[in-house]
Amino acid sequence: MSGPQVDPASLQHRPAPEPDATDPATPWSAGIRRTADGALALAGHDLPALAETHGTPVYLLDADDVRARARAYVEAFNAAFADLAGADVYYAGKAFLSVAVARWVHAEGMSIDVASGVELATALRAGVPAQRLALHGNNKSDAELTEAVTAGVGRVVIDSLAEIERLADLAAAHGRRVPVMVRVTTGVHAGGHDFIATAHEDQKFGLSLRDGAAREAVRRILARPELELRGLHSHIGSQIMDLAGFGVAAKALLRLRAEVADSDGVLMPELDLGGGYGISYIGEQAPPRPQEVAGALATAVNDACAELGTPVPHISVEPGRSVIGPAGLTVYRVGTVKPVTLDDGGQRLYVSVDGGMSDNIRTALYEADYTAALANRRSQAPIVASRVVGMHCESGDIVVRDVGLPSDVRPGDLLAVPATGAYGRAMASNYNMLPRPGVLAVTEEEVRFIVRPETPADVMALDLG
Amino acid sequence: MSGPQVDPASLQHRPAPEPDATDPATPWSAGIRRTADGALALAGHDLPALAETHGTPVYLLDADDVRARARAYVEAFNAAFADLAGADVYYAGKAFLSVAVARWVHAEGMSIDVASGVELATALRAGVPAQRLALHGNNKSDAELTEAVTAGVGRVVIDSLAEIERLADLAAAHGRRVPVMVRVTTGVHAGGHDFIATAHEDQKFGLSLRDGAAREAVRRILARPELELRGLHSHIGSQIMDLAGFGVAAKALLRLRAEVADSDGVLMPELDLGGGYGISYIGEQAPPRPQEVAGALATAVNDACAELGTPVPHISVEPGRSVIGPAGLTVYRVGTVKPVTLDDGGQRLYVSVDGGMSDNIRTALYEADYTAALANRRSQAPIVASRVVGMHCESGDIVVRDVGLPSDVRPGDLLAVPATGAYGRAMASNYNMLPRPGVLAVTEEEVRFIVRPETPADVMALDLG
Repeated sequence: MSGPQVDPASLQHRPAPEPDATDPATPWSAGIRRTADGALALAGHDLPALAETHGTPVYLLDADDVRARARAYVEAFNAAFADLAGADVYYAGKAFLSVAVARWVHAEGMSIDVASGVELATALRAGVPAQRLALHGNNKSDAELTEAVTAGVGRVVIDSLAEIERLADLAAAHGRRVPVMVRVTTGVHAGGHDFIATAHEDQKFGLSLRDGAAREAVRRILARPELELRGLHSHIGSQIMDLAGFGVAAKALLRLRAEVADSDGVLMPELDLGGGYGISYIGEQAPPRPQEVAGALATAVNDACAELGTPVPHISVEPGRSVIGPAGLTVYRVGTVKPVTLDDGGQRLYVSVDGGMSDNIRTALYEADYTAALANRRSQAPIVASRVVGMHCESGDIVVRDVGLPSDVRPGDLLAVPATGAYGRAMASNYNMLPRPGVLAVTEEEVRFIVRPETPADVMALDLG
Repeated sequence: MSGPQVDPASLQHRPAPEPDATDPATPWSAGIRRTADGALALAGHDLPALAETHGTPVYLLDADDVRARARAYVEAFNAAFADLAGADVYYAGKAFLSVAVARWVHAEGMSIDVASGVELATALRAGVPAQRLALHGNNKSDAELTEAVTAGVGRVVIDSLAEIERLADLAAAHGRRVPVMVRVTTGVHAGGHDFIATAHEDQKFGLSLRDGAAREAVRRILARPELELRGLHSHIGSQIMDLAGFGVAAKALLRLRAEVADSDGVLMPELDLGGGYGISYIGEQAPPRPQEVAGALATAVNDACAELGTPVPHISVEPGRSVIGPAGLTVYRVGTVKPVTLDDGGQRLYVSVDGGMSDNIRTALYEADYTAALANRRSQAPIVASRVVGMHCESGDIVVRDVGLPSDVRPGDLLAVPATGAYGRAMASNYNMLPRPGVLAVTEEEVRFIVRPETPADVMALDLG
């Protein structure tokens, strides 16, 4: 960590950490460096040059970092579950999916989770075999289920009792047998450094363990020969730093699996423990590494199976954010810079950029923390409490709520906001009719848009006058 | 108001009010009725037939209601400020702008606020004279300012000191004189039933009254002959029910105006008091009517001018949400219906629809309240605590957090969510790669998409592979 000494309790004065690939808490992608002349560079390409050529705002994606993170999860889980001939690691496409991303993660050994017809179509267009795809969703349409069945996806994750008959009937109509998992709500909710376990779930997903719905789903699936019951699935939360909750959820699922084996004589071969592994957004804390995640899950599963006296199942997991999030960043150009006097007498520098809540809704939506750094030069000016805001006609249009920036930040400067690879472009809007930025994939050898920037004409094309 | 007797403190059991155009608190557009066979209809067109023909989810816009609301504001302000040859009412395009909407509100006598290059282009494409347009924004680009200058917009609302020189230089370069307003932050913040007045503003917009920035902006504008100082502008908040805050803000602006008249001999001709007038989202309360808004503002301005001994300025205002919001609704088709047991032993019905946070982010973003009603039939089933959720792969994907729905709501039913005309389509995303719904304008005579629905091909077209 670098930067002047400031009140560590005050995020308002905390500058972005300098890129440092050896820092386990870095929010920057592996390929980001500060060059000798003070600019940031990605895989050797200076950000000012990229911004000049490709415009701002722009999402940059460190393609090698995406692939390295995908590979790290695959290797870690294969190692941790080597006794079981490895594990399956699904990329959770909702974080950000494009044809190129699907190709990369598949090439590194990942399967892919999709949650809509277009996500499914995108993965197929990328050449990922349908067998390596899983279809998720609490409200899959008949069209989506039909597409999944006819494509022959590797599994459909059942989310309600009604879906069982619908899917079985569709499978029958198409003469297919469809592998399914049952999404079970275990009452375990994790996020950050803690988890809770409640008796019941107050959310839309899954089938409850406690009220018997999960057990009933298993019974109904076993009654339909068109469905192949692969196993049980749970997803316990997002941005998880403390892995302990996974063990609690795994044990609950394994107990149900053992009960089904006892009563129905069917030992489900697989257990999916979902994803939700946290990442570093502001550099304050090292997130769990793939080896740690895989190790913790292997220990939890092995211990629970030993305790229950039940065979260890094949394991699958679903990282999304932790693969794509840290590999992305957004580059903005600074426009208006405005010091604002606060009621306590202090000042806050409002630094407006040429994007905002349309390209990153997470700050406003989840009160998510981000950081930002000067990307075109180094500055020795004092660090001042700053807020990076967008250009939208709304006071809640905030990109980075609290960050220390050099007091000489000025119009024309570039700001880089790290860790925007997940849920950035994926949730972008055309608010205020702003064209959405493109996603520029960068490696040493190649710089190219994998999702092209929208133009004003694109935005206006849907308007029928 | 209708529906069974339920705990009035519990939003969870409160059904949507039945459409009733005589109810000043109705959240439904004026053209919505329930037909004899129990379905909802808009301007005589049954919603089930519209949904069948045009698909779901779909945004419906009651075009006559938009026009009536626009007309009501224009007439109310012209009447309240008749002594001053009327007032200018700007439609705040950020709420939802399309060529058709711009045409309608302009035909009813409104001017239009735009906040980006594409909003400006859309209003111009609609044939609205540039003179009737105002350009807003805390971070206008050179391109946007140039477009505004060359088009000859009626005014640019200055939001920072730096913008003054930029705009004046651009005006000089194009041989134009540009009318400007100064956006002043008065410390007044209103919303709902209250307002507060702080010494300083902790937000990105405007120039502070207290620290002298607003006064300095006036001085600098007067020093640039390329700029014509039209007056002062303030915007005090959103979804305002209590109009008292406008008087406080108006008085603060009028005092500055009087000071400038004294010191510089320039009496600014205009005062813009912004918008932010609340609407009914769930039917619990009647929002201020246009006549009430205009009357309250006229009284506040006249009283303050009398007290300050200063002439009454020309007034302009900027409603957006209150023109377009109540005239819109979203129609969804119900998919999964899932009763969930809560920890307190109660049950909540999770009703999944075929859209979600991608077509209405406000519930998740602002914890906004909405309501929902069965749109395809009447039901006598008991009302149960319900939550309308979307199809996205995220537990926060909620459309209506708490509403009473008939216990027999089932897959295939249609739900209508009223008051989605503002900030619905305008903030929509392609999250989970969902195509965005179209906006179907409906009158007795005509049903047509003014913004067409996206297709899967549209969503995939930006993906360069």
